Amino acid sequence: MDKSRSSGFTCWLTGLPGAGKSTIAVELVKALDELLVPCELLDGDVVRTNLSKGLGFSREDRNLNVSRVGFVCQLLNKHGISAVVALIAPYQEAREQLRRTLPNLIEVYVDCPVEVCIERDPKGLYKKALTGEISQFTGISSPYEIPTQPDLRLKTHEEEIEDSVKKVLDYLDSNGFISRG
Amino acid sequence: MDKSRSSGFTCWLTGLPGAGKSTIAVELVKALDELLVPCELLDGDVVRTNLSKGLGFSREDRNLNVSRVGFVCQLLNKHGISAVVALIAPYQEAREQLRRTLPNLIEVYVDCPVEVCIERDPKGLYKKALTGEISQFTGISSPYEIPTQPDLRLKTHEEEIEDSVKKVLDYLDSNGFISRG
Repeated sequence: MDKSRSSGFTCWLTGLPGAGKSTIAVELVKALDELLVPCELLDGDVVRTNLSKGLGFSREDRNLNVSRVGFVCQLLNKHGISAVVALIAPYQEAREQLRRTLPNLIEVYVDCPVEVCIERDPKGLYKKALTGEISQFTGISSPYEIPTQPDLRLKTHEEEIEDSVKKVLDYLDSNGFISRG
Repeated sequence: MDKSRSSGFTCWLTGLPGAGKSTIAVELVKALDELLVPCELLDGDVVRTNLSKGLGFSREDRNLNVSRVGFVCQLLNKHGISAVVALIAPYQEAREQLRRTLPNLIEVYVDCPVEVCIERDPKGLYKKALTGEISQFTGISSPYEIPTQPDLRLKTHEEEIEDSVKKVLDYLDSNGFISRG
């Protein structure tokens, strides 16, 4: 069974800011490119600029952002283009909705304790959230609902990026989404 | 030269409500399907629901809607999937912006006098616009800037749908976007 032959998959990396979603996504897309899997990276920041300008960070707006990206994934997947998404998607209800609209969804929980994320703070946003300079920040002043049944869980504080990427590739391979020959 | 082999094209049908954009788009996509051209129909109503919920009908919001759809077209085209768009896109500035972001854009002006559109009124919206029941309606209470240099102009009040579709296919063929063999 090679699902990738007829339609693409969506590999959605969900998790706290700083958990490693974008980093893994970039490396994953590189690896998929090498395997000649047609795919597109949809990163939270790019999406906010191009699809969701004007949306805020309330529960409703975040869910709307998720469903919009899901719509784009649906279009891509339908035509055999896979999508790798790096987007917090903090609410369970929106992730469940994705599962209903995307037949080939792989929900990857990028699991990293908030303390580690605060330490990493790649964009300096936790600092601003902790001092109250920015509000509605996931993990600090806005909730992150832990996925109850992710297809995969990556503990980025315990493993290297290449290990995480390999786990995703192994999952995709053993579930017929890609073929490494 | 077969541009479709490497990347897709975007055929954007712009024009007044009731000019015939959606009707032509549906028939065009059917014809492209038969030619095995991978393509996707993006219709104004579907787009408003899935990408632009919350946007209104001001100049700014309409332009934002256009640029969002343009972003999706860009993603699809990049991966060899063509797009047929049926969306009013009333402002020249937004259409010019599309031209900058979509290398394979075909701007098709679906040209039909507003009097004819009012007569057709397929969704009963002109009636509501004329009585003031709905506001900011293109052609009545919101402007439509006529494309200055469309790639193609279809006069739907003077020709049959199949003629219009044939004109687009001829254009795509003679410009190397598709090959009818």
